[in-house]
Amino acid sequence: MEISELGEFGLIERLAKEISVKNATTVRGIGDDCAVLAPTEGMQTVVTTDLLMEGIHFDLTYVPLRHLGYKAVMVNLSDVFAMNAEPRQVTVSLALSSKFKVEDVEELYAGMRLACEKWGVDIVGGDTTASLTGLAISITALGEARADDIVLRSGAKPTDLICVSGNLGAAYMGLQLLEREKLIYDEQVAEARKSGSKEQMELLKDAQPDFSGKEYILERQLKPEARGDIVATLRKAGIRPTSMMDISDGLSSELMHICKQSQTGCRIYEERLPLDYQTAAMAEELNLNVSTCALNGGEDYELLFTVPLAQNDTVSALEDICVIGYITEPDKGCALITRDGGEHSLKAQGWNPLKA
Amino acid sequence: MEISELGEFGLIERLAKEISVKNATTVRGIGDDCAVLAPTEGMQTVVTTDLLMEGIHFDLTYVPLRHLGYKAVMVNLSDVFAMNAEPRQVTVSLALSSKFKVEDVEELYAGMRLACEKWGVDIVGGDTTASLTGLAISITALGEARADDIVLRSGAKPTDLICVSGNLGAAYMGLQLLEREKLIYDEQVAEARKSGSKEQMELLKDAQPDFSGKEYILERQLKPEARGDIVATLRKAGIRPTSMMDISDGLSSELMHICKQSQTGCRIYEERLPLDYQTAAMAEELNLNVSTCALNGGEDYELLFTVPLAQNDTVSALEDICVIGYITEPDKGCALITRDGGEHSLKAQGWNPLKA
Repeated sequence: MEISELGEFGLIERLAKEISVKNATTVRGIGDDCAVLAPTEGMQTVVTTDLLMEGIHFDLTYVPLRHLGYKAVMVNLSDVFAMNAEPRQVTVSLALSSKFKVEDVEELYAGMRLACEKWGVDIVGGDTTASLTGLAISITALGEARADDIVLRSGAKPTDLICVSGNLGAAYMGLQLLEREKLIYDEQVAEARKSGSKEQMELLKDAQPDFSGKEYILERQLKPEARGDIVATLRKAGIRPTSMMDISDGLSSELMHICKQSQTGCRIYEERLPLDYQTAAMAEELNLNVSTCALNGGEDYELLFTVPLAQNDTVSALEDICVIGYITEPDKGCALITRDGGEHSLKAQGWNPLKA
Repeated sequence: MEISELGEFGLIERLAKEISVKNATTVRGIGDDCAVLAPTEGMQTVVTTDLLMEGIHFDLTYVPLRHLGYKAVMVNLSDVFAMNAEPRQVTVSLALSSKFKVEDVEELYAGMRLACEKWGVDIVGGDTTASLTGLAISITALGEARADDIVLRSGAKPTDLICVSGNLGAAYMGLQLLEREKLIYDEQVAEARKSGSKEQMELLKDAQPDFSGKEYILERQLKPEARGDIVATLRKAGIRPTSMMDISDGLSSELMHICKQSQTGCRIYEERLPLDYQTAAMAEELNLNVSTCALNGGEDYELLFTVPLAQNDTVSALEDICVIGYITEPDKGCALITRDGGEHSLKAQGWNPLKA
């Protein structure tokens, strides 16, 4: 169905039907000039926002809309968890070019609803409008935490241990794989066109690349998970990180933010970087250095945090968390110790959309 | 300066230098995964968001970036005031194509800062990223109000008076004027090109249309003001509207939202529609029906609200507020009474970006 058949208000009405409000702090969701929220007494509110643009942040030739919706919400929830807070609400704004149908928007919303349901988050409002070219998605997430619980980037102290959750570089490897398959497919189509073979063209229409054995890195790219489970694990273990942020642009870049804002240096160890087998295998296949991918790949949405040295035993015993190094005095700089014992300055070579 | 010289973080750092946090409810602004806010005890939070796309919502050939920034913030504050709430914070996301320079973004931010300063609002965060084509601006505004003070669209009751602030149709007339001058200019350039006259081309470069006597309608289009003053006036007069919303898509469209959500009908009177002299003169010049412009023009950012009939004397005595009709039982429908006494069904013919 064409979106123009419904218009803005018809489309919103249709989408809103599928959205129910469940969070105790949501007083009123979609349908007025503003949503109305009732903050929990004694809690502070955290707010984060992301703007995703087609052609910059995602490629619809290989990203299903449902996954895109899921990811667009998750990356915002990830920022809320990175404050040691609980997500409560999101607003969703979309700008749609004429190539999108009502069913496309419903797919996108289905993914967003799924991500919200996973963490008890309400979609409370937004804006739905037109775009001359492509799709723009702007999501704002709100969360809550007690003032004492909120963890900033600026609290790391020398001797603190540097920890990361999960493993690194997998989402980046997933992206490389998708980009490679897209290139191969485009070449095959070009060849078939050149040869004029209709049969070949028909075959290509339904062609699906063989991704077996690579499911994990694809899922990390297409359907990342915000690590609210890690926040809960730390709380249960009685650990309050001294600093924390989520890894969206790459470990190096994020760690340098923490060091800059905490006015410290750091030393991390290459051999300690947590890697999945599929990440390493794909890096090998593509002739890439897997450590470089783990350091700068981006889109991991894992948590990077620091804990006092005294909590070494406690944190080391936790599942899915690795200690990768420690915080130093600022004059030591930010260093990576390689497997051969060499020391290299960390560089923020990760994702930077506005860099040449 | 090229934005790529600074990159995302350099640009944010540069912009953030000009931004200071003043609102008592802002604990931490730009610089972490989330902003941190401390809601006032006993108050509820309101949230609204808008996504503005180049070529759909604004035309940079005649909209100065500083005005665009001002307007982008104001239209969100307008939604906060429409809840009878006080704005506190905004987040600002920008997607920029390569045609934009650092100085352009600074101009845009200067306008946004000005709008924020006017209402004591803090810019607490956002996202700055790249775009393949054009500019996208996504703003989210947060505000506060006591639960009892919040006014929804759904509270209008039969016999309530329908009121609007300021006057209507002026912003739409300003847009028509700008569009006409753009057309004329484009034709002149095409002609000069055709004739090959370099002299003529040079003259056109610095050509400025004569807008004298039309300043007001231009300002209404380019630099709208959110009517926080009206909210204050009503509070001072002891009037709590039964329903309220801001007029962004046109009076007819908004009034029909109020009637739908309040399950009522309405009668408004053409002769009561508040018009500025410049609006009427421009409509005359363009051979447009001025009432149609006032009903459907959009972008007025005036407040539309209803008050109990018993407050007729109080509300009628207030400056810059007009009573234009009253709320009826739902079976009466939404009607406009024309100057000649005729009755016509209201139609939502206003701005609807997704309508064919």
